[in-house]
Amino acid sequence: MAKFLVAVLLFSIAAAAYAAGKGQPADPIAPVILGVTGILFFAVLGRFGARTLGQPSVLGELLMGVILGNLGYLFAVDFLLVLREGPAIFDMVDLTLSGAPLEQAADEALGHKNALIILSILQGPGGAELTQVAHAVDVFSRYGVIFLLFLVGLETSIKEMREVGVESLRVAVLGVVLPFAFGFMAARLLMPELSVNVDLFVAATLGATSIGITARVLKDLGKARSHEAHIILGAAVIDDVLGLIMLAIVSGIIISGGFEPFNAIKTVTLASVFLLTAFIAGPRFLRVTINVVDRLDIVEAKMFISFLFVMALAWFANLVGLATIIGAFAAGVILHDGYFHQWGDIKEHQFTIRDLISPLEVILVPIFFVLMGIQVKLETFFNWHVIFMGCGLIIAAMIGKLLSGLGAARGTSRWAVGMGMVPRGEVGLIFASIGKSLHVLSDALFSALVLMIIVTTLVTPPLLKITLKKVPRQN
Amino acid sequence: MAKFLVAVLLFSIAAAAYAAGKGQPADPIAPVILGVTGILFFAVLGRFGARTLGQPSVLGELLMGVILGNLGYLFAVDFLLVLREGPAIFDMVDLTLSGAPLEQAADEALGHKNALIILSILQGPGGAELTQVAHAVDVFSRYGVIFLLFLVGLETSIKEMREVGVESLRVAVLGVVLPFAFGFMAARLLMPELSVNVDLFVAATLGATSIGITARVLKDLGKARSHEAHIILGAAVIDDVLGLIMLAIVSGIIISGGFEPFNAIKTVTLASVFLLTAFIAGPRFLRVTINVVDRLDIVEAKMFISFLFVMALAWFANLVGLATIIGAFAAGVILHDGYFHQWGDIKEHQFTIRDLISPLEVILVPIFFVLMGIQVKLETFFNWHVIFMGCGLIIAAMIGKLLSGLGAARGTSRWAVGMGMVPRGEVGLIFASIGKSLHVLSDALFSALVLMIIVTTLVTPPLLKITLKKVPRQN
Repeated sequence: MAKFLVAVLLFSIAAAAYAAGKGQPADPIAPVILGVTGILFFAVLGRFGARTLGQPSVLGELLMGVILGNLGYLFAVDFLLVLREGPAIFDMVDLTLSGAPLEQAADEALGHKNALIILSILQGPGGAELTQVAHAVDVFSRYGVIFLLFLVGLETSIKEMREVGVESLRVAVLGVVLPFAFGFMAARLLMPELSVNVDLFVAATLGATSIGITARVLKDLGKARSHEAHIILGAAVIDDVLGLIMLAIVSGIIISGGFEPFNAIKTVTLASVFLLTAFIAGPRFLRVTINVVDRLDIVEAKMFISFLFVMALAWFANLVGLATIIGAFAAGVILHDGYFHQWGDIKEHQFTIRDLISPLEVILVPIFFVLMGIQVKLETFFNWHVIFMGCGLIIAAMIGKLLSGLGAARGTSRWAVGMGMVPRGEVGLIFASIGKSLHVLSDALFSALVLMIIVTTLVTPPLLKITLKKVPRQN
Repeated sequence: MAKFLVAVLLFSIAAAAYAAGKGQPADPIAPVILGVTGILFFAVLGRFGARTLGQPSVLGELLMGVILGNLGYLFAVDFLLVLREGPAIFDMVDLTLSGAPLEQAADEALGHKNALIILSILQGPGGAELTQVAHAVDVFSRYGVIFLLFLVGLETSIKEMREVGVESLRVAVLGVVLPFAFGFMAARLLMPELSVNVDLFVAATLGATSIGITARVLKDLGKARSHEAHIILGAAVIDDVLGLIMLAIVSGIIISGGFEPFNAIKTVTLASVFLLTAFIAGPRFLRVTINVVDRLDIVEAKMFISFLFVMALAWFANLVGLATIIGAFAAGVILHDGYFHQWGDIKEHQFTIRDLISPLEVILVPIFFVLMGIQVKLETFFNWHVIFMGCGLIIAAMIGKLLSGLGAARGTSRWAVGMGMVPRGEVGLIFASIGKSLHVLSDALFSALVLMIIVTTLVTPPLLKITLKKVPRQN
């Protein structure tokens, strides 16, 4: 612990030295390095803290972000304030470059009160660079999410999905439908002033499942081979796909301009055409391309093909009105090492695609988690209405998933199955971040959803342990 | 080949679809994805073309960039025009955010003629996003250079440098000093109107060596074990360090405000203190930190520690007035897998640090090469003065390195040794890019230096083959 304080101290010295020399760094990348590396440093601290306390890493990183962002707000730390308002500031820059006067653009994008604060920061010494740094952090975090979903896709095999049992299927469907329904009702009742679009998005976020945390608890307790574990893990495979379909439909409706039968049909059609094309043309395209690039060595070939393929599908997904991550996920499901058989027996390849893409994910995803935490504005909770809303969402989220356990057959521990489905983790967070990008979620709603994610992720390990007590230990 | 045309066609369709939908992409990352992936796609094309013709990849990527950038200029492709003026546009945005009126900022950063063109692009539909995309490409390429130098550092061992023979040492020193001297003279004679700072920087760029190309030719000819090969490869190890020291001194002088005895002493002192501290405190710091993070798994630990360490040294290097890449190189020399012995015998580690950082380099470095190519402005050569200057630099660069062969003992093929030192490749390119960042190199000079790099890299393989004919084949 003392040694870690030394590390923190050294970092602070660096920050102070920066503040002293601020204004004229020789290499334009230096401020970006400081910002990105600083965020990653705190992410590692958060992850390390979470591991020490036996908690999932995503929780440590998110909470570290919430602490940083809100301390940054309290003590008016320029960089953190800029990161907190990130997306709005990029909108402001866009407006300014399009010719709008700076003050007017700031008012429009940030609101009058924030605009004054942010403009005074940006016009201070070294302030203009902060926008570039915030933009780099934003870009890195979004790339992180794309690689994360690509890796999730890589681990999802269609064959495995077909083999999932009826119980898992029932649990998975209930686990998406019930939280969606409860979430929608909670949103209607607690926030009647908001549009149906917003309600739909909130409800979709409640339907997400992140199974990583449950899987670890099951393993730690030596119950990874129990019947309950099989049901949960099977349901999780299906849930990733169901959740993404839900997201696709909801965000498609929002992008195309609101809930109308025509828009819904258009969205579903476009999404289906995109996915069908990807799954039919994708493998052919990969075979042809990989056949051509055989002059490259295998690491180059795997990296270039994987990167270009995942980015192409992410971009096309966006083009047809889906989220980029859906394209990335599809790319992961389609791509596998088998395509690279020209370089010899795939079992003897030194590096799998997963090995090669993981380093990108390891660096970039923690930046995403911390950034999302930073953008949680606790000050929005100084309002009873928002507190009610947050609690309502948490209750809807918990009950909806717990009841999904009813999909399991009698005789199994239905509470344990339901509890295993509760954590939202990174999947819910990605949904919330997309809602923010689409300007559907206000600061208050985004913050409430992130808190819901933190709470559901935090309560799962202890509650799961209790519900699993009756389940016999098997190894 | 036909199949590749299909790929190009598909990409063009994508670009056309983008142009059609331009203005309202749902996910703010989508344009960035298109831009970055597009650049990487052309990089892969260039690399593949170079391999097919038996040329080094860096050449294919650079030339692809030169072609793209200048075709983009001829046909007024918005995105390429923005990339071409990248750094100047970022300056403009900074000025605007600091409160300067947009037109005035543009005139100041871009010059009046370019300002009109660029502003009309940025104020067109979807134009504002182009700045963000260009910025992302710029950030990625700069990170690429940092990882590249880190990997070069990883492969440089101090032990190996001590074991290098006297002949190699003589060749290395001559190979930096002679091109520097000739380069300085050429710059003084051909460009008497420029300041001594500029001349120094041009001269330093001429002193760089990139040995990768020579090593491949030697291997292809089965002469990698000849005496000449040993001298060249030994000299290359020392040259990386000598070149970086030269760069440190020259850029330090420029940053601190011009060539004066006091500045030169200050630069050398600061650089020495930084490097000494890094080499003494670095290993201790690594041992303590790695000891603390043993709760993380080995891939996480290696990635986080490597990333944070290289970025910290890069940033500190910048702080003391050195280039970030010098810090990255030092980090590579200091760090090795041996520090991670807590996770078991290092020979049995599944992934080395090199394995984990390479994927980042494989994606990012080609983006750097293409971007540098794009920023070569061939239109600056419609001027006899610039053409003379370019030819003069190429001649100085060639003769300086060829004469370094005189450092080899009699009886060895001195021409072959000198010829092996000629290519500048990525090292020269990095120097030129830093000169551009420091606003030392004009567009014309930067373009002339990149051409010098292309020419020296292009002529080496055939000329080296001729000079090596007399050297007996050994395997």
